Amino acid sequence: MTQYQAARAGEITPEMEYVAKRENLAPETIREEVAAGRMVIPANRVHLSKRLEPMAIGIAATCKINANIGNSAVTGDVEAELEKLHTSVHYGADTVMDLSTGKDIDRIRQAIIDASPVPIGTVPIYQMLEELGGNIEDMRPQHFLDMVEHQAKQGVDYMTVHAGVMMEHLPLTMNRVTGIVSRGGSLIAKWMMAHRQQNPLYTHFGELCEIMREYDVTWSLGDGLRPGSIADASDAAQFAELEVLGELVKKSWEYGTQAMVEGPGHIPMHEVQMNVQKEIEVCHGAPFYVLGPLVTDVAPGYDHITSAIGAALAGWAGAAMLCYVTPKEHLGLPNKEDVKQGVIAYKIAAHAADIARRRPGAQDRDNALSRARFAFDWNEQFRLALDPDTARAYHDETLPQDTFKSAHFCSMCGPKYCSMKITEDIRKMAQEGSLVEIEAGGD
Amino acid sequence: MTQYQAARAGEITPEMEYVAKRENLAPETIREEVAAGRMVIPANRVHLSKRLEPMAIGIAATCKINANIGNSAVTGDVEAELEKLHTSVHYGADTVMDLSTGKDIDRIRQAIIDASPVPIGTVPIYQMLEELGGNIEDMRPQHFLDMVEHQAKQGVDYMTVHAGVMMEHLPLTMNRVTGIVSRGGSLIAKWMMAHRQQNPLYTHFGELCEIMREYDVTWSLGDGLRPGSIADASDAAQFAELEVLGELVKKSWEYGTQAMVEGPGHIPMHEVQMNVQKEIEVCHGAPFYVLGPLVTDVAPGYDHITSAIGAALAGWAGAAMLCYVTPKEHLGLPNKEDVKQGVIAYKIAAHAADIARRRPGAQDRDNALSRARFAFDWNEQFRLALDPDTARAYHDETLPQDTFKSAHFCSMCGPKYCSMKITEDIRKMAQEGSLVEIEAGGD
Repeated sequence: MTQYQAARAGEITPEMEYVAKRENLAPETIREEVAAGRMVIPANRVHLSKRLEPMAIGIAATCKINANIGNSAVTGDVEAELEKLHTSVHYGADTVMDLSTGKDIDRIRQAIIDASPVPIGTVPIYQMLEELGGNIEDMRPQHFLDMVEHQAKQGVDYMTVHAGVMMEHLPLTMNRVTGIVSRGGSLIAKWMMAHRQQNPLYTHFGELCEIMREYDVTWSLGDGLRPGSIADASDAAQFAELEVLGELVKKSWEYGTQAMVEGPGHIPMHEVQMNVQKEIEVCHGAPFYVLGPLVTDVAPGYDHITSAIGAALAGWAGAAMLCYVTPKEHLGLPNKEDVKQGVIAYKIAAHAADIARRRPGAQDRDNALSRARFAFDWNEQFRLALDPDTARAYHDETLPQDTFKSAHFCSMCGPKYCSMKITEDIRKMAQEGSLVEIEAGGD
Repeated sequence: MTQYQAARAGEITPEMEYVAKRENLAPETIREEVAAGRMVIPANRVHLSKRLEPMAIGIAATCKINANIGNSAVTGDVEAELEKLHTSVHYGADTVMDLSTGKDIDRIRQAIIDASPVPIGTVPIYQMLEELGGNIEDMRPQHFLDMVEHQAKQGVDYMTVHAGVMMEHLPLTMNRVTGIVSRGGSLIAKWMMAHRQQNPLYTHFGELCEIMREYDVTWSLGDGLRPGSIADASDAAQFAELEVLGELVKKSWEYGTQAMVEGPGHIPMHEVQMNVQKEIEVCHGAPFYVLGPLVTDVAPGYDHITSAIGAALAGWAGAAMLCYVTPKEHLGLPNKEDVKQGVIAYKIAAHAADIARRRPGAQDRDNALSRARFAFDWNEQFRLALDPDTARAYHDETLPQDTFKSAHFCSMCGPKYCSMKITEDIRKMAQEGSLVEIEAGGD
């Protein structure tokens, strides 16, 4: 049985127990959420038998983040990708997608799955295309089914499949500023154009469900027509595909499989909440897994920031998982440092969203860090930071480490202008009696 | 006459004409907004006679950003601060505050004013304290009045004065997690505690107005009791001071001076809009100049990002200017690279806010960049980027510059998986007739 089937049958699985502890929620709440389709536990049986630590993605859980790694034809090997995996997990990625499209795809994926305690996602069409020699027109539905089965056997926990892009959607994309920006979406579109036939991933969705069910692979229903620019945000093509994704969510549940839905992309701030609400409505509450979104297009090189703004808004509005964007987005394949920058920006976004949604305990770490800050307990402040090493290095850059580590100031203000030091003085004065007179109106 | 007095008298000044062009607004709109107090044009007559290029801060104008520079007792000299000024202006800071508290304060400020085309702000209490030898208890009101006059004569365009912190507010801060985090606010609080007298900047506000009016220095009414942690956000101390700031806004207008109001600080996402609306209401529409706010405390070393999220939300809600926060916040004095990172993060936030508020033309640059991106016009994409050098460097890192500069892909996806390249193919196929058949239902 899949987690979904077990939940529907009223059964609390060991994985539900496990994530209940991680989320500080009752096991029955987890079961209810999974049964309602509002939560997924991406845990392929094969990966579960290795070192996977089950986690949950859903609106009732804390907001999650995903890091995309993987090589391209231009750059990346097994060792580099394993390093990116370790960096991702170290800084707090909740899931990792291996989007390799270059050499050694199979070996890289197996190494990543074997090494990873977090769920691994893939986009099976990439490897299928590699094996076809690069011409998407040569694809037959069986090629895709075989590749999904192959990757499921390897232990992939969730897969992005672009089954919602329909032939009749393509005219809606022709006048877009940036066309189709999903790699899988554009490949399927090209296949449909060449064959003048409907999306084979849509027409074979039931067969795909049967494979997914066998291994309990979770659907990540790809948004092949997501907008790739602010100009194309929230357009007819995007929402036409979303309707199909809603239909596929229902179908995936009928087959007993777990499903989440992928979302945009590039969305201006004032349309983010509407996009999340619309997905929840159209897709029957299935967890929304958004890519950013970027809230402006003008800052290539800084798209971890342009998108962290949109991601925080999306998480606040109810998106269940935020797919990171690195500083290299639109420019090149991220390296290890880019992965780190992307993960940290998204930990910030997800955490800010947890606070804004008032998830229980979300603010505890903020409060602890602020208390350490006020007490000039620099070591504790660094320990509680998302990136202790960087915080410490920045502090030490302008104050010699040995002499000033316990100083009641930093180089920003120096000793005379530290407001927290002055507050200490004020509180001391208050204890000595001045405050009583002030409360009585001063003299 | 100050800009405010001229506007009230129905006069459109040359500075209003100038900013009307910059903002793509009618000069009469500028005059109306200035007359209503909803817009300020910080332009000290002395700086105006040098190289100041007038600009406007207000809800009807585009969202502005400020960069804080200045040395501390621990680090920084004239050359370093001039470099930071140039970096700030180069990357798009609309105003710059010189917050120097270390050596050579006077010489640094004069050099910055003389070199700056953007308005310069200061916090006069810092230099006053230096001249007093470091003990705030020694301050008499005349010391402060003299320092404001001295800096006004130098050409400072706007000044932060913490006139809203009242004796009766201090008990409200005693149980805060992070106390008083405004340097000026904490100094005034300490003075009040020591003397058991009301804030002298409040009691001498009228005299201060007269000095400000003579040079047309704009008030930046400091929020001495802004929260310094999520735990202290939107608390009684903060809002008690805001009420006084609202009163001072009215008084500043009565004296014919321009005023804006400073705001927090650290605010969770779901309270940002409320904070902006409250300021607009309580402070009679005076422009709101916010510091971030940070939406979480857990990421020292990345507070340009934690705060850019809050700043974007604040700008969207109607804040007129966003004071940047650099990656060094809470850890040390920003250097030139930190200044650059802070300015870019805030250009992103302000621009995202302009798009979300649907300010006319705000999205033009996004659209142009997206068109260049889709056309693989890399040079044009870099030219339109907020930081062309970084975007180019990231691109070139993994693709040799000479051979691939005009490539229809980048190293992120490589040639086979570039969705924009595939979209090109699809559109070509559509022109060749496939689309017509698809629109007719395929075959």
